[in-house]
Amino acid sequence: MISGKNYIGEQLIAQGEKTYHSFDPKLNLPNQTSFTEATPEEINRAVNLATEAFQDFRTFSGERKAAFLEAIADGILELGDELIDTYCSETGLPSGRAQGERGRTVFQLRSFAELLREGSWVEATIDTAIPDRAPIPKADLRKMNIPLGPVVVFGASNFPLAYSTAGGDTAAALAAGCPVIVKSHPMHAGTGELVASAIVKAAKQTGMPNGVFSNLNSSGIEVGVQLVKHPEVKAVGFTGSINGGRALFDLAAAREEPIPVFAEMGSVNPVVLLPDALDRRASELAKTYAGSITLGTGQFCTNPGLILGLAGQGLDNFISHLSEEILKIDPSCMLHPNIIGAYENNKTSAQGQEGVEIVAQFEQEVAVNHARQTVTTVSGSIFKDNPRLHQEVFGPYSLVVQCENEAQLIEIIRQLEGQLTGTVIAEDGEARKYPGMIDALQNRVGRIIYNGVPTGVEVCPSMLHGGPYPASTDSRFTAVGVHSIKRWVRPFSYQSWPDELLPDELKNANPLGISRQVNNRWTDRPIN
Amino acid sequence: MISGKNYIGEQLIAQGEKTYHSFDPKLNLPNQTSFTEATPEEINRAVNLATEAFQDFRTFSGERKAAFLEAIADGILELGDELIDTYCSETGLPSGRAQGERGRTVFQLRSFAELLREGSWVEATIDTAIPDRAPIPKADLRKMNIPLGPVVVFGASNFPLAYSTAGGDTAAALAAGCPVIVKSHPMHAGTGELVASAIVKAAKQTGMPNGVFSNLNSSGIEVGVQLVKHPEVKAVGFTGSINGGRALFDLAAAREEPIPVFAEMGSVNPVVLLPDALDRRASELAKTYAGSITLGTGQFCTNPGLILGLAGQGLDNFISHLSEEILKIDPSCMLHPNIIGAYENNKTSAQGQEGVEIVAQFEQEVAVNHARQTVTTVSGSIFKDNPRLHQEVFGPYSLVVQCENEAQLIEIIRQLEGQLTGTVIAEDGEARKYPGMIDALQNRVGRIIYNGVPTGVEVCPSMLHGGPYPASTDSRFTAVGVHSIKRWVRPFSYQSWPDELLPDELKNANPLGISRQVNNRWTDRPIN
Repeated sequence: MISGKNYIGEQLIAQGEKTYHSFDPKLNLPNQTSFTEATPEEINRAVNLATEAFQDFRTFSGERKAAFLEAIADGILELGDELIDTYCSETGLPSGRAQGERGRTVFQLRSFAELLREGSWVEATIDTAIPDRAPIPKADLRKMNIPLGPVVVFGASNFPLAYSTAGGDTAAALAAGCPVIVKSHPMHAGTGELVASAIVKAAKQTGMPNGVFSNLNSSGIEVGVQLVKHPEVKAVGFTGSINGGRALFDLAAAREEPIPVFAEMGSVNPVVLLPDALDRRASELAKTYAGSITLGTGQFCTNPGLILGLAGQGLDNFISHLSEEILKIDPSCMLHPNIIGAYENNKTSAQGQEGVEIVAQFEQEVAVNHARQTVTTVSGSIFKDNPRLHQEVFGPYSLVVQCENEAQLIEIIRQLEGQLTGTVIAEDGEARKYPGMIDALQNRVGRIIYNGVPTGVEVCPSMLHGGPYPASTDSRFTAVGVHSIKRWVRPFSYQSWPDELLPDELKNANPLGISRQVNNRWTDRPIN
Repeated sequence: MISGKNYIGEQLIAQGEKTYHSFDPKLNLPNQTSFTEATPEEINRAVNLATEAFQDFRTFSGERKAAFLEAIADGILELGDELIDTYCSETGLPSGRAQGERGRTVFQLRSFAELLREGSWVEATIDTAIPDRAPIPKADLRKMNIPLGPVVVFGASNFPLAYSTAGGDTAAALAAGCPVIVKSHPMHAGTGELVASAIVKAAKQTGMPNGVFSNLNSSGIEVGVQLVKHPEVKAVGFTGSINGGRALFDLAAAREEPIPVFAEMGSVNPVVLLPDALDRRASELAKTYAGSITLGTGQFCTNPGLILGLAGQGLDNFISHLSEEILKIDPSCMLHPNIIGAYENNKTSAQGQEGVEIVAQFEQEVAVNHARQTVTTVSGSIFKDNPRLHQEVFGPYSLVVQCENEAQLIEIIRQLEGQLTGTVIAEDGEARKYPGMIDALQNRVGRIIYNGVPTGVEVCPSMLHGGPYPASTDSRFTAVGVHSIKRWVRPFSYQSWPDELLPDELKNANPLGISRQVNNRWTDRPIN
C-alpha cells in the first residue's frame, strides 16, 4: 500500500498541505494516490536525523553495510508485482523494462555489497616510520577513504529504479558510509515510496541507525533547494536536465561551505560513421541505429542524437536505410505529457532551423503520449555555425550531419559541448587513418565506443559514465559502476596514530586482509 | 640573470607597462629587478600555446614525462647560489630554509618521475568481453586516468620553491600530462623567474612542446582572474588566503564550463592536550610547542594556532611553561611588510576580544619586519561564542583555550571550521577514553596526529594535506604527496576498442608491466 507520505527516517509523516499525483501516460490520467510534499520542518528533521545517524553509520564495518545493501535488494524483489505495476502506471514503460531495471538495481546493490566485503576500495596507503632518518625522523602515516557525510540524491525521471530511490547514487553513498536523503521524483512518487519502504525495512532489520535513509516527496523545486542549502548536507547526486543540474550546482557553489554536486545531465552522444564502414554495411548499421535511437522511446542519456559522416554515396545510402528502418518501428509511450511536450517543442525548433531537412518522420496516427520518431539531416557547414543544432532533443530523434571533409568533421567535434559518449564505426584498420578525429572525440567525451551503440551502459568497474561539462558537472567521477563510491568519500590521514585506535583497514595486522599500498608496494600482508 | 620578463612558453616577453619590484624584508628595501606584468595578449598567448601543447603532451609516455621532471630538478640545482640568494632576498628567510625547501622541491619532482616510470598510477581497470552472456553480450571495457588539460598554478607566498613555480602543484600537473601556466607570486618574482628558466630549459632539452609551461608576472588580481576565466583552462591550483582562494573558486564555478579549483587555504590546526599528558609532560610539551609555533616565523599553514585543554593545574602549568619557552626564542623576519602588517592587525584584533588574556608577548626591541611571538588564553565558554577567535592569525601566535569539561571541549571542536590537521597529545591508553572528542576532531580535519606537532608535512603517498572547507575547497584531494596527481586527471573508458589503438596502459600485452585491475583482480600479467 502506497501511503503518499514522506519517510523521515523510519517514520511515515505528512504534515504538509501541498499534494500532487503521479500520472499514467498510457491512460492519460492521474494515478490515484495523493502525495504530500515534505514541509520545511520535515526536511530539517530528515537532515538532522541523517547527521545523527552518520556518527554511527560511518564507523560500521563493510560487512554490516553489505548486509544492509543486500537486505535492500531482497526487499525490492519482495515488493513483487506491486512494484512492477506501479512503475508501469507511472512511466508508460512496458513491464519487461520494469523487470530489467529492477534486475539492474538489485545487481548494483549486490555489487556494492561485494565491494564492501572485499574491502580494498578504501585505498589504504601506509608509509611506516623511519625513526633514524636524517636530518629529521619520518613519522608513521596511514591514509584511507572515509565518508563525506549526509548525501542528497535527486531521482531521475527516466530510471525510476536504477537511478532513483535505491539506484546507483543511493547504493554508492550508503556503501561509502553516507546517510542518504532522497528527493523523490514526482513522476514516479509511488514507485519511490515502495522502494523507500524496502530500504527502511532493511535498515531496521540490519540494525542501521534511524535516519540513515529518508524519502521526501516533492512536486516543485522548493524541497530540493532547501536540501542543497542545508549546512549539514555534504554532497549531492543528480540525474536530469542541464538546467536543473546547473541550478543545483550553482546553489551548492554559493554555500558558505561549498559542496560537490555530481550532476549527470544532457548529451547528444556523437556517432562517427567512417566511409569504408558505410560502403560495406550501410543497411546493417541503419537497422542497428534505428533500434538504438528508439530504444526506451529515446529516453536514455546515451541516446545517439547526433550522427556524423563524410558527405557522399555511402552516407546517402545510410540515411535512406535509416529512414526506412526507423519507420518500421512502432511508436511507444513517453514518460509524461511534459516530456513528450518538450520533445515536440525541441524537435519543432530543431527542424525549423535553416538548412535542416526531415528525412524520416512517423506520420500515422499514434496513441496518446506516444512519440513520433524522427531523423533529420543537415550539412556540416550549417551545423558548425548553429549551436542550436548541437543541443539534445530528448526522445527518439537523431540528426545526421553531412561533413564536407575530414577537417570539417574534426572542427565540428572540437566545437561540441562535453558528451557522455562518442562512437566510431569503422572497418578493420580504418580508424587508425583518422587519428585527429579520434583525438578530438576523446577530448569531448567520457567513454569512446568502437563499432557499437552508445545505449546500454554496462555496470562494471571499468565503466565511466560521465564526461566533460555539460555531460556532467564533474568529469572526474563516474555515476555508474562500483567506482562511483569515490564520489562520496575523502581521504584521511592518521599520523603516528596508536594501532589500537586505528580503523581495522589500517591496523598493522591487517585483520580484514585487504590489499594495501605499504611503503609503495601493494600487499595484503600484515606489517611487523 | 633575472630579466623581469614573462615566459610565454619558451619566449621571454614583456610588452606590458605595469611594473613592480619584489621586496627584501630584512633590508626593508625593494629588490633591484623591475618585473613587467603580463598583458591580456600575453596571457591569451600562454593559454593558447598550452592548449596546443596539450595535444601532444597528453600522449607522452611516463618515461618521457619523467625525463622532463628530472631535468627540471637538475636544472633547479644547477641554479646554485643565485637561486638561494634571490630566495633569501625576497623572503627574509635564512639560507638553510632555502636549501631545505629546494631539497624538498627536487625530491617532489623526482618522486613524480618515479611514479610515472612505475606507471600504475593511471588506475587501469579492465573488464573483458563476455560474448555469450545472456540476455545480452557484455562488451570489453577498459578505463584509465587521462589529463584534464591546461592547469593554472598560483604560487604560495610562504613556499617560494616547494609550492610555487616548480612546486607540488606544477610537478603533479605536469606528471599528469597537463601543461602548466604559473601565475607568479609577486613577493618572489625573481625566485619564480629563475625556477621558470630551469623548467623552460628542461622542456627544450627533453623535447617537450613549446607552451607546456609558461610563467606570468602579476602584481594584482587581473592576471589571475583572466587565467581562471579563460575557457581553455581546465583546472586551478592555489595556496594562500581564504579570501583569495574563495574568490577564485567563485570565478571558476560561475564559468559557462565550471572547472575545479584546488585551493589550500587557512587553518588553525587545533591541538588537544589531554590531562594525563599535561600532568606528566607539561614542560617538555611547552618546549616542543614553542618551537612549532615559531617555526618559520609561524608562516606555515599547519602552524598550531589553537591549543585546547581542560582547565586545571596541568593546563596552567603548560601555559606558564609555554610562556617562558616561547620568549626564549629569537624573533625572526616575516616574508613581507604586508604579511607582518596583517599579523599585527589580526593579533591586535584577537587580543582585543573580550576575555582574551595575553600570557606571553615578546616585548623587547626587534629588527625591522621581525615578528613578536605571542601566546594568549581564553575560557572555553567565551571562545565557543566568539567566532572571531576561531580565525587564523597567520604568524607566530597561538591561543590556548581552557575548556570547562569534556562536553565543552567536544562542542568547541564541532563548531570549528574545517582544518588541515588536528593533534591529540595523550599518555599511553589515555586517548581511548575520549572517543567523542576524537570523532569530533576527525570530522573537522584532513589529518590527525598523535603526540606530535602539525608543522612538518611529510611528502609521501599516505599524506593528506587538505581538509574540510575552508582548509581547502575540495577535501577529496591532497595537495602534498604523489597522490596529488589525482587532482589533474579524469577517468576515461574505451569500449570494444581495438587493441592496436588503445594506450599502452590498456593493451592486452601490458607492455608497461603495470598493475591493473582485470576482471576485479589486481595483476600485472598480460591478457590472453
